Amino acid sequence: MGTDGEGGGTIAFLLYPGLTPLDMIGPLQVLGGLHTVAPEWKTVVVGERLQPVDSDVGVRLSPQATFEDVPAPDVLLVPGGGAPTIRAMGDEGIRGYILGAAEGAHVVGSVCTGALLLAAAGLLEGRRATTHWGYHMLLERLGATYVPERWVEDGGFMTSAGVSAGIDMALELAARLTDEGRARLVQLGIEYDPHPPQGPIEWERVDRNLLQPVVEQHVRGELTHRPELQRRLLRDQDGTRRGAG
Amino acid sequence: MGTDGEGGGTIAFLLYPGLTPLDMIGPLQVLGGLHTVAPEWKTVVVGERLQPVDSDVGVRLSPQATFEDVPAPDVLLVPGGGAPTIRAMGDEGIRGYILGAAEGAHVVGSVCTGALLLAAAGLLEGRRATTHWGYHMLLERLGATYVPERWVEDGGFMTSAGVSAGIDMALELAARLTDEGRARLVQLGIEYDPHPPQGPIEWERVDRNLLQPVVEQHVRGELTHRPELQRRLLRDQDGTRRGAG
Repeated sequence: MGTDGEGGGTIAFLLYPGLTPLDMIGPLQVLGGLHTVAPEWKTVVVGERLQPVDSDVGVRLSPQATFEDVPAPDVLLVPGGGAPTIRAMGDEGIRGYILGAAEGAHVVGSVCTGALLLAAAGLLEGRRATTHWGYHMLLERLGATYVPERWVEDGGFMTSAGVSAGIDMALELAARLTDEGRARLVQLGIEYDPHPPQGPIEWERVDRNLLQPVVEQHVRGELTHRPELQRRLLRDQDGTRRGAG
Repeated sequence: MGTDGEGGGTIAFLLYPGLTPLDMIGPLQVLGGLHTVAPEWKTVVVGERLQPVDSDVGVRLSPQATFEDVPAPDVLLVPGGGAPTIRAMGDEGIRGYILGAAEGAHVVGSVCTGALLLAAAGLLEGRRATTHWGYHMLLERLGATYVPERWVEDGGFMTSAGVSAGIDMALELAARLTDEGRARLVQLGIEYDPHPPQGPIEWERVDRNLLQPVVEQHVRGELTHRPELQRRLLRDQDGTRRGAG
């Protein structure tokens, strides 16, 4: 990782309309919990404007600062979502903020399909990365190598799997920014001792291409104004075009 | 539990100023995820007013409806927090909403110190319940029996341990409201296959009374306008008064 945990700094979370809020709130609750044990690390939620934005579960969220207020965070974390995140891949304001912030950041991280925003900005080309299991084909079509792990590091980039995986990645990041003892205190603070009542996911029964038709429908519907990006995202890995896009 | 999973209905989440947002967003992302597999269950975030409220990690959240809009949900879930939740224990508007909504609800649940809001409303007297590990003494002083489990059921009440425990409880509730297969689909959707990087919490090294001085300071600071409740919360289990409260 690009940080040695010295000095502290700003951890910015990118908020945009329609996101999956657990992608952001999980890591925010972890890294926000550093304030009692490592007050030199500050979290801030940034958005294009200060107005509340929708999420995919009805609740609306308001950022604390605008893109202009926090142009150069030390850590940038980008949450994901469904169709609205595909739409955000074609948003020049979001792309510009990610590229500008990534330039000086020690760590650039993503949760779930937030990795697609990094990839659409050209940041994951040739890198190992992960994303929500159902969207891996888009990551690959943007030049990254999809690795089906809970989180993946490559250089200063730290990407996590879908939604809840951001909590695990953030605890790992907390340990890097401070030390394992303080990460454990944060873990205790949010009582993160998970016991999924139906047990772990049975990956051998999951077809990671199951959502491909839905995902490609999102690409067709949400990126009509970005035909070049749309074409890349609808191309098979062998280079042939797919479907009506 | 008071529900047999038939018919569907409304799952209301109580939003109030200063809460710990992961307490609410975790279960909301789980139960909101039912919309594709059990659209008869609808989530709604309710607050006293529609305006955004602060949280304990800077981001602000806006409810979708007011208390008056959703007086009789089928399921009520109450999130927790730190000092602001202690303050909310003395809030007549919140108490009134909880009591009214609980009257007809099949399930009344809480995450973390949300259990203290139920207990302050008199709903957990004589019941087995759980809460954040650091606040268990307040639950006991309000007449409940603290059970240090991930979640606890007693009658129609389902209480979970601190913050992240709400995700586990919500997956259990999702299975009750629908069936285990659909709960597993929701789990897959949020890729909930947790791998805490520092391992599980080492409970044998945790003193569950560690936070008692801080918790009692919150009670002294936040409930000055509710002296009777304050006295109950500062009483030891054997009935003696503690400290300067």
